[in-house]
Amino acid sequence: MMPDLGLEQAFHPKAIAIVGVKRSEGGSPPGYTGMMFLSLLQEAKFEGRIYPINPKADTIAGLKAYASVSSVPEHVDYVIVTVPAAAVPGVLEDCVTAEAVDVHICTAGFGETGEEEGYRLETKIRDIALRGGLRVVGPNSLGYHVPSARMQMYRQAELVHGPVAFVSQSGGHCQMFVRQGPPQGIGFSKVISYGNALLMDSTDFLEYLATDPETEIICMYIEDVRDGRRLRELVTELNPRKPVVIWKGGLTPWGARAAATHTGSMAGDKQTWDAFFKQTGAIRVDSIDEMADVTMTLLKLKPSVGGRVAVWGGGGGNSVAAGDVCAQEGLQVPVLSDETKDRLLEFMPIVNQIMVNPLDAGSVFRDMSLLRRALETVAKDPSIDIILLHLAAGFFKWFGPEYAARFRECVSVFNRESPSGKPAVIAIRDEGKPGDAEGFVYYLREAGITTYSTLPRACRALSRFASYHRFIAESGADATASLPLHSRPSGSTHRGK
Amino acid sequence: MMPDLGLEQAFHPKAIAIVGVKRSEGGSPPGYTGMMFLSLLQEAKFEGRIYPINPKADTIAGLKAYASVSSVPEHVDYVIVTVPAAAVPGVLEDCVTAEAVDVHICTAGFGETGEEEGYRLETKIRDIALRGGLRVVGPNSLGYHVPSARMQMYRQAELVHGPVAFVSQSGGHCQMFVRQGPPQGIGFSKVISYGNALLMDSTDFLEYLATDPETEIICMYIEDVRDGRRLRELVTELNPRKPVVIWKGGLTPWGARAAATHTGSMAGDKQTWDAFFKQTGAIRVDSIDEMADVTMTLLKLKPSVGGRVAVWGGGGGNSVAAGDVCAQEGLQVPVLSDETKDRLLEFMPIVNQIMVNPLDAGSVFRDMSLLRRALETVAKDPSIDIILLHLAAGFFKWFGPEYAARFRECVSVFNRESPSGKPAVIAIRDEGKPGDAEGFVYYLREAGITTYSTLPRACRALSRFASYHRFIAESGADATASLPLHSRPSGSTHRGK
Repeated sequence: MMPDLGLEQAFHPKAIAIVGVKRSEGGSPPGYTGMMFLSLLQEAKFEGRIYPINPKADTIAGLKAYASVSSVPEHVDYVIVTVPAAAVPGVLEDCVTAEAVDVHICTAGFGETGEEEGYRLETKIRDIALRGGLRVVGPNSLGYHVPSARMQMYRQAELVHGPVAFVSQSGGHCQMFVRQGPPQGIGFSKVISYGNALLMDSTDFLEYLATDPETEIICMYIEDVRDGRRLRELVTELNPRKPVVIWKGGLTPWGARAAATHTGSMAGDKQTWDAFFKQTGAIRVDSIDEMADVTMTLLKLKPSVGGRVAVWGGGGGNSVAAGDVCAQEGLQVPVLSDETKDRLLEFMPIVNQIMVNPLDAGSVFRDMSLLRRALETVAKDPSIDIILLHLAAGFFKWFGPEYAARFRECVSVFNRESPSGKPAVIAIRDEGKPGDAEGFVYYLREAGITTYSTLPRACRALSRFASYHRFIAESGADATASLPLHSRPSGSTHRGK
Repeated sequence: MMPDLGLEQAFHPKAIAIVGVKRSEGGSPPGYTGMMFLSLLQEAKFEGRIYPINPKADTIAGLKAYASVSSVPEHVDYVIVTVPAAAVPGVLEDCVTAEAVDVHICTAGFGETGEEEGYRLETKIRDIALRGGLRVVGPNSLGYHVPSARMQMYRQAELVHGPVAFVSQSGGHCQMFVRQGPPQGIGFSKVISYGNALLMDSTDFLEYLATDPETEIICMYIEDVRDGRRLRELVTELNPRKPVVIWKGGLTPWGARAAATHTGSMAGDKQTWDAFFKQTGAIRVDSIDEMADVTMTLLKLKPSVGGRVAVWGGGGGNSVAAGDVCAQEGLQVPVLSDETKDRLLEFMPIVNQIMVNPLDAGSVFRDMSLLRRALETVAKDPSIDIILLHLAAGFFKWFGPEYAARFRECVSVFNRESPSGKPAVIAIRDEGKPGDAEGFVYYLREAGITTYSTLPRACRALSRFASYHRFIAESGADATASLPLHSRPSGSTHRGK
């Protein structure tokens, strides 16, 4: 048997075998097939060797095909299995023979079906894997996606390297996060879809990520976990150094029923998980959107940024709504100091420009010298940690692209140069014109401004960010090793089809 | 004095005077000026006469200007006042002289400033209005927007007539709803921005709308109300005939603080309003998005559609999330009957196509004959009221425009022809590519399919819709007069600048 190098060889393989690649798939609908994995690796210009395994083929997609993993003429670091469920046991025996330890079983149709045959097959492959020392990820999963290794597992996704790991029981959620992350400035170290968790569970991956130098933030989607105590220990230990963001699915009756058929999971009860989050301080989210928003915030803002917000928008009704949303999401909206108000009143008109907080003072957005001065003035207020600008997409559109460019520049320069170090972030208000809001969100993010799609999303992410850092500070854990976290995604970029 | 025709003459005026129109406003930033109201009316091709009032001008924007309302040579049905606050009392005296009863005060700077001068002015104009019998809307408001009268009060909004009234203490929210409504199939009878509610309050407008034949659904944004008991009585009486959808702003500390400075409101306490909604059965929302979603649902679905949903999507993780979201939003997700499952299994593959509910069966979306058959089969299940299809925007993009057209046609035909009468509605799942999701939402709505931007928004609207009709049925109120409500917006369309 080869010396065990740990998961590292699976995440940076020199040779990948794909078992169950059809000779031709022209015109067939997209699905999780061997050919899909093969073509994604080729498109990503994977630098290692790819071995299609198909006893009936000589060459597939320009590559020599082999009859079995054990007939490949070099050691195989990672095997992707896409044959039908009934054929999987035979493939695993072949992997044991080949001493190919890291095996990803994509195939579904095991315990999650709830059928006797599925359970029987799952028991059988567990026995083979345990006996042969295989490190199986799956079944019913999409395996490993590693930008730094040019291992691409998802269609229509950019291969963007960065400090964020995602460990997920759902392959669909991996695909979504891999797509949504990069436009929010999120790049990935390892994306791990582990499906039914036959052998390798979330805790095993957390152990690896704990010492993975590529990974600074850990996101997770969990339906269930075999060793809950171990998960709690690991997250408690990791969270101060590498923030752990968790979406726990299936805590309602209908979600739980779906989880049972999705990955054969027993989703657990809400009380247990509420206690888990309270004890560990892990950041709780309920969707990929929320996961992306809070991750973006962790990457962009300094840990010192707290939850006391000056909200700055235009329109009285919007100010009321903003106050309500901040309160509901757990942010503080302090009254500005008299000194701050007096200073603002020196250069701002009063009518309809109400100097409480949220500030109804949209006209300041029209004049960049006023805006800069107003931002500096509010940032000086000791009761404020962060300025949240709330702008209608229509505002940018109405005033045109030159205005948008000047506004963007003004906020960028403030964030770079302001002596207070307190950031201005932006939430865009959609006004019902398709595409307007999203367009400006991306436009502002391009310039490095932390920008959220909506005010509720901004408030939710900022509140979680502040709560996380408060928890870490209060628990006295030593988080200095890994902070600050404002590294940016870097490295290779490849656009899939 | 002229005979009092009630509010009708204000909503369908033959002559409008605008007090405070500057001779020229070239290049000035957009704001709520007399010239704005004048140009919006001209752009909308308002069919009555428009009289700019400015003692220093002869003509403005091609119209003869007058020194005062009382010097206009015909009876003025509606006066828009945009002069500075200090000049408003004089204008009101002039209106009294002119017997111009319906006066909209746009000007801000009264009680909402919290300043003594503001209170003093507010008391003064109240006295003049009461003494002179003026029906003042405002101050600090945008007044009446009436598509059927070609009275346009908002920029960048289509003038779309329809059965929905909006009564709002915030002009900004009016503007937002007027923009967001039409793309969701919502047209307006009257949009009323009443600001500080000096004299005319929400209850006064409700009394008018109760017998307004143009209005079938009443939406409201309220910060406070003078006569809470009257509001409860009116909503209780109206709600069974004309569904009342209410966004109550300012029920949190920071929202309340903003409301006080916005319209001088005392926002009230949460318990009182919780009781109000429970007693009246009014539909509670918390944003314009939610208001638009539930209004769209009221317009499109039959009252018989209940809250028992078959959710149909693709991907196990998405099914878990969908189950969780439905549960959180209060929808029922029943297990399909054995008969339904057996029928589905006759033509659907089993692996990864789990026949529980939510249904993880995305492959059915690829074949239109399969999809039609599957929709019919599920619709026959007696435990299901409605089918909610949950599709990724990427799905449409991946398969291309021909596929999208066939899919849209299939669902439209099912909705028209299905003997069950149970509708299929759609929620689009954003996958992080800017514009994809919104594009498909509009594409599907164009064909008359009830389509929501996200699954949570769909579930929230459907749950509120079902709760509303359950409340009405259980309260035994006679709602037959005004239902079903699936009329479509109609009438004139004018696109503003």
